Amino acid sequence: MSRWLSTGNNVRVVPAIPRYYQAKARLLDLLGELPGNTPFPPERELSDVFGMSRTTIRKAMNELVLEGRLIRGTGRQGTTVAPPQHVHRLSLDAVVQDLATREQVAVRITGDVLGVESVLVRGDEPIGVRSTYLRASRFPGFAARYDRTTPLRKFLSDAYEIRFGELHPWCTTALATPRVAGLLDVRPATPVLSIAWLGHDFRGVPVERSWVVLRGDRAHLTMHLPRADHAGRFEGSAQFHAS
Amino acid sequence: MSRWLSTGNNVRVVPAIPRYYQAKARLLDLLGELPGNTPFPPERELSDVFGMSRTTIRKAMNELVLEGRLIRGTGRQGTTVAPPQHVHRLSLDAVVQDLATREQVAVRITGDVLGVESVLVRGDEPIGVRSTYLRASRFPGFAARYDRTTPLRKFLSDAYEIRFGELHPWCTTALATPRVAGLLDVRPATPVLSIAWLGHDFRGVPVERSWVVLRGDRAHLTMHLPRADHAGRFEGSAQFHAS
Repeated sequence: MSRWLSTGNNVRVVPAIPRYYQAKARLLDLLGELPGNTPFPPERELSDVFGMSRTTIRKAMNELVLEGRLIRGTGRQGTTVAPPQHVHRLSLDAVVQDLATREQVAVRITGDVLGVESVLVRGDEPIGVRSTYLRASRFPGFAARYDRTTPLRKFLSDAYEIRFGELHPWCTTALATPRVAGLLDVRPATPVLSIAWLGHDFRGVPVERSWVVLRGDRAHLTMHLPRADHAGRFEGSAQFHAS
Repeated sequence: MSRWLSTGNNVRVVPAIPRYYQAKARLLDLLGELPGNTPFPPERELSDVFGMSRTTIRKAMNELVLEGRLIRGTGRQGTTVAPPQHVHRLSLDAVVQDLATREQVAVRITGDVLGVESVLVRGDEPIGVRSTYLRASRFPGFAARYDRTTPLRKFLSDAYEIRFGELHPWCTTALATPRVAGLLDVRPATPVLSIAWLGHDFRGVPVERSWVVLRGDRAHLTMHLPRADHAGRFEGSAQFHAS
């Protein structure tokens, strides 16, 4: 038994479940029965079996591809069932401090802008791209000095005596650009998690602008909020951070 | 002048820019010149002008619709230019503490599960949906007692003397389900930001499971990290939280 007890007189009307979503639910049931890497029935066959148009089936399949449940082959290759997903949890601290395993760290210099780009890897998979921009004139000799293995903010602290202040990162969704999609080995327009921040030193002078893109189907960003006090606000006391 | 200085021998190959993305760049230029709410040229016309296939143009336009730059009309209505976007910044604290403006707070009881659903509103727009699940037997009389205006965690603290412990929310992307899409007034499968947590009391007993979905094109989640110490780790000292 279930009932909704609503209040307010500006209740939004929720439309009926679209047909493609009904198809998706049925495809998800089917997916649940098939082991990873097996071929998925073609659109035409599903359309016949479910008595739904190919357009409807295609729309449902497209969503399952975007969600990483189906893998679409190229050319003549059909669609296959994605193997069980490993979702990697990355903490906001690790993302900001550049503590994730990385590969292909590249340094680019354009005028006075130093760009540092790295691909974040977990297991054998690329799961994110990190881009940091610095003022080249503030970090003389950076390209030659940076060893590409030290976490970037630690290197800036050690080599250039930067003392970082507090950070206010923000997070949103984006569609993978072709470049990011290529680095992450996903199709362009795959939804990604986008985390950005402007890092200041402790005097409030901007030092670095960073942008991390994580595969939405492979990575979760984990955060930490200390214990709330009785009034419902969060305390900032050290003992809850120290754990 | 720009150059890439790469390291590592497992450099990922980034494929050429796909044609639809070139189309998108041109459509974005065009968008920049058109005021909000004006009609956008139809697919057929853009295909002729740019000398690109309708499929290519359609794919580019679909992405712009998902990103909230174009608004697709229903039936015979064409596509229009979205008015300049207001992006609302919601802090993780406010999201967790349920401090956002809400409307249509509904309480649902299914067996021993109490569901509280609310639509988060900023300006005149719905920008998120919050769902919280509680054990009904732990909160007797909840549906009658909850006034639907007090922030939920504050109400649980005040009315049931719950003392909440620290939280570890996680964040990822998702495609809006038809129900969420209906509440948020977006098309199903629009990318959304999904933030979830399991709230424990200070003894570690689970109290509430919550899930907040935010429109990716209208809301940014803002977070806070205290000042980093010299070693590149974050300090938890109270003075940086107190600000």
